[in-house]
Amino acid sequence: MKFEVNAKLKYQVISDSTIILNIHALNNEHQKVMEERFTTNPSVKFKALKSLSAENRLMSIEIPPQENFSINYQAVVDNVFEIKDYTEVSDLVIAKLSPETLTYLHPSRYCQSDRLYRLANNMFGYKANDFAKVSALTHWIYLNVEYLSGSTNAQTSAYDTVTEQAGVCRDFAHLGIALCRALTIPARYFTGYSYLLSNPDFHACFEAYINGSWLLFDATKLVPLNGMIKIATGRDAADAAVASIFGDVNFVSSEASCQLLETDFEPFYADYLGANGISYL
Amino acid sequence: MKFEVNAKLKYQVISDSTIILNIHALNNEHQKVMEERFTTNPSVKFKALKSLSAENRLMSIEIPPQENFSINYQAVVDNVFEIKDYTEVSDLVIAKLSPETLTYLHPSRYCQSDRLYRLANNMFGYKANDFAKVSALTHWIYLNVEYLSGSTNAQTSAYDTVTEQAGVCRDFAHLGIALCRALTIPARYFTGYSYLLSNPDFHACFEAYINGSWLLFDATKLVPLNGMIKIATGRDAADAAVASIFGDVNFVSSEASCQLLETDFEPFYADYLGANGISYL
Amino acid sequence: MKFEVNAKLKYQVISDSTIILNIHALNNEHQKVMEERFTTNPSVKFKALKSLSAENRLMSIEIPPQENFSINYQAVVDNVFEIKDYTEVSDLVIAKLSPETLTYLHPSRYCQSDRLYRLANNMFGYKANDFAKVSALTHWIYLNVEYLSGSTNAQTSAYDTVTEQAGVCRDFAHLGIALCRALTIPARYFTGYSYLLSNPDFHACFEAYINGSWLLFDATKLVPLNGMIKIATGRDAADAAVASIFGDVNFVSSEASCQLLETDFEPFYADYLGANGISYL
Amino acid sequence: MKFEVNAKLKYQVISDSTIILNIHALNNEHQKVMEERFTTNPSVKFKALKSLSAENRLMSIEIPPQENFSINYQAVVDNVFEIKDYTEVSDLVIAKLSPETLTYLHPSRYCQSDRLYRLANNMFGYKANDFAKVSALTHWIYLNVEYLSGSTNAQTSAYDTVTEQAGVCRDFAHLGIALCRALTIPARYFTGYSYLLSNPDFHACFEAYINGSWLLFDATKLVPLNGMIKIATGRDAADAAVASIFGDVNFVSSEASCQLLETDFEPFYADYLGANGISYL
Repeated sequence: MKFEVNAKLKYQVISDSTIILNIHALNNEHQKVMEERFTTNPSVKFKALKSLSAENRLMSIEIPPQENFSINYQAVVDNVFEIKDYTEVSDLVIAKLSPETLTYLHPSRYCQSDRLYRLANNMFGYKANDFAKVSALTHWIYLNVEYLSGSTNAQTSAYDTVTEQAGVCRDFAHLGIALCRALTIPARYFTGYSYLLSNPDFHACFEAYINGSWLLFDATKLVPLNGMIKIATGRDAADAAVASIFGDVNFVSSEASCQLLETDFEPFYADYLGANGISYL
Repeated sequence: MKFEVNAKLKYQVISDSTIILNIHALNNEHQKVMEERFTTNPSVKFKALKSLSAENRLMSIEIPPQENFSINYQAVVDNVFEIKDYTEVSDLVIAKLSPETLTYLHPSRYCQSDRLYRLANNMFGYKANDFAKVSALTHWIYLNVEYLSGSTNAQTSAYDTVTEQAGVCRDFAHLGIALCRALTIPARYFTGYSYLLSNPDFHACFEAYINGSWLLFDATKLVPLNGMIKIATGRDAADAAVASIFGDVNFVSSEASCQLLETDFEPFYADYLGANGISYL
Repeated sequence: MKFEVNAKLKYQVISDSTIILNIHALNNEHQKVMEERFTTNPSVKFKALKSLSAENRLMSIEIPPQENFSINYQAVVDNVFEIKDYTEVSDLVIAKLSPETLTYLHPSRYCQSDRLYRLANNMFGYKANDFAKVSALTHWIYLNVEYLSGSTNAQTSAYDTVTEQAGVCRDFAHLGIALCRALTIPARYFTGYSYLLSNPDFHACFEAYINGSWLLFDATKLVPLNGMIKIATGRDAADAAVASIFGDVNFVSSEASCQLLETDFEPFYADYLGANGISYL
Repeated sequence: MKFEVNAKLKYQVISDSTIILNIHALNNEHQKVMEERFTTNPSVKFKALKSLSAENRLMSIEIPPQENFSINYQAVVDNVFEIKDYTEVSDLVIAKLSPETLTYLHPSRYCQSDRLYRLANNMFGYKANDFAKVSALTHWIYLNVEYLSGSTNAQTSAYDTVTEQAGVCRDFAHLGIALCRALTIPARYFTGYSYLLSNPDFHACFEAYINGSWLLFDATKLVPLNGMIKIATGRDAADAAVASIFGDVNFVSSEASCQLLETDFEPFYADYLGANGISYL
């Protein structure tokens, strides 16, 4: 399914600074970037980086002092996904996981799964299989955590959200990831452009490793799961920040959007009560 | 310098379980494993894994129920290090870092550098260069954090230790790493076998990325820095656990030792007051 | 109902020290201390103190260095309680509360009710009245928090326990109190001697202010609620520590017991599923 | 010294609600309220309460739904204080403290002194006496914690501020209190009207119990210490909130001011480097 995605970031740059951006759409065999344009105003030196493991496409830019500095990214991207039934799911075999996947069982900055073992198992351990467990915890987050802009900050973690029960998409994702890992299900953070998201922003949700694939879950239930263009995956938001700033830079504004370029889109809204799951690859 | 290292781990295994071990010495161009023996009693199925990025050598073993299960690792290893003067250190250029190194600027589970910016800069920001900063913070940890067995647990993080000021080698390392990252100096966790460590255990310290190399720092000041055999590096202890257990397994005991096989060893005890630093590569 | 209570505390006193004890049974119109003996070996200077608000009976003792210092307290106490049906409960009227009772709505060191509002209301807010809410949350703690000696320490708080779901009687009490306050129900910590407690120790539970009385709740469900001799109430364990130590003193051992002196005892084990509640006054 | 103080609070009241106010100036032998006017618009039922221990003057008001509800308090108050030299200070004798004062050695919601023992003693333990210790820690907070509006919220505690090193007057006070208690010096929260405070708001600082009196300390160094009209003392902000709201009420605005009514005012700005201290009684 083809989408056009756009990102606009504005900064006030006080002193010579470096920004590491992570706003480029992934470009691999499952998600094709067909056209792409990256510009800054004024123009500056930039260098593309690629994280070996996760294929995330970073862009490092060096900026002299600048009252109004703007970044634009535009791309046409064709995503590929698969929706199928997960009534039957085979058990995870730890011994067969790659070291890369094992990593996503470890606790991380915002996903302290080591502190959630009893809670996760008390609440979701009895479910039939990993798909049912992750569906149930995603639905529980949806029901119990209030989506409340401004209620959290860059330091809020899953350990806070499980108790305080308010947050934004990033917090919903971190809690989902932490609960999965506490149930011994590898889980990772997912950022992307999201079709039909009402506020013009980047979106975050999470992937859980089930039956040998990474399935997508979104406890906010704000958008159709098949309208995502993936930017990055990582352990949590510390790995996949839209922009990492080094220097004296003030954030001014940020916008992201995603437009459909085709006509036959059938939105897939997972309610996490059934057995259908979706994987991007 | 050649050393013989030994590790003995004992477990009681209640049900079919998997253990991912990380006790093998690194084997690369800078640290040669000359002989090596890995056995378990009784024998079980095992599989070697290698984390692509960090070269850590994992061993995945599958164990049936077993009242007394023991693991033995023995190796002769030749380490290579360089001690030199760091009076002059060039500034870190973010834009030149690899994505792999950038990772070590991010906060992680046990090293919440995002919450330590003001503290780190208030205390160490005025120092002349990155080597001087890391030396000063390492010495500060040594002076202010009490080495106290049993004072912390697997959930203790740098955010706790900076205030509670007690812990073991793992906690000293986490605090060092968090302070470095808060000063925009990449830092990573280091585990290894350590010559002249008085208790027969694995050791943990940290590496900071200075002048284009990873230099070794140890805020415990318990051992000579040139008597280390490296097992693993990672963001923090979540990445480099000696053993990750999946299943119903009780820990019984753990021992690690490191013997010198040569005679001309001159111990390098950094006091973090001078300009000499050491790098393993 | 008459009980004999005993407490024995042992310390190694390194330097001149002061200990503030809170092991004396309350003595008021609802709980009569009939006989009482307080001794230390060797004898030292002591002074009785009484907290005005809570009637807690403190004992301040000054001790010179002493290898083996022991404290003994023995008393015969007649407790008075009332068990009745709380199917009908009138709403709390904040404006009618005394400042003393209002205090027990505030968050305290170990009971951070301010961070639990959404969770408490999501889980228990729908219940018919305050008695039903507190019964439900007490039963929920009983079902979900594992009683596990040694799993927590003197810094563990309700904010930890609600997520980590393991602890001892003190932790069960703190979580109960925090959830009550988050539901705008005054709640306070209760320490005492407890008949039929299997380990020879002091016990802690909590009181909630319902229908104009302080009702007793115990989420551990370890003991009959009518076999308690009250020592103290307070906001949380910070107010009602058995011993506050000032000086260089090592704790050696502590024992507490409670024996029944009558024969017609009918244990009242609240299961928190019915409508019967118990108040000590 | 005579001052006129004013407070104006505005709320939108959605449903029948109760607000417990704590904005009345203390009225005791050391601070005389000479005139006083408390009004609300529209008029509502109110009841004065007095906390027995701390003499704080609470006002409980019951309010029906009201789009614009305003509260006004105005008073003329004569404060009494003493400034003197504390070069010589006698040691605190725990055994002589009243239970009321002992309370202020315990950790509380926002002042987790139990987690700061080593830090407080490492940094300030070597000072000659309690006055020197509290002066030093107050000055350290002034130097290291950045006064930054909006950087903290109602859940921020001393444990956060000691590390994050940013906050407002409330946070400066909590950290001062926690450090004092960790040094075994009783300390309590102080709220009041403050002459020469640049923003029209209530002020918070803290008192430490030294040489048998409660001395006033203010780590913000924003105002002269002899221009305070005391409203309340308590363990921390949980005890001395300006307004505790029960019901569906939206905060609209709050103002507080303090005008001097005499002409011979000599401001006493403690710099915490000398030996002069000030006590209100």
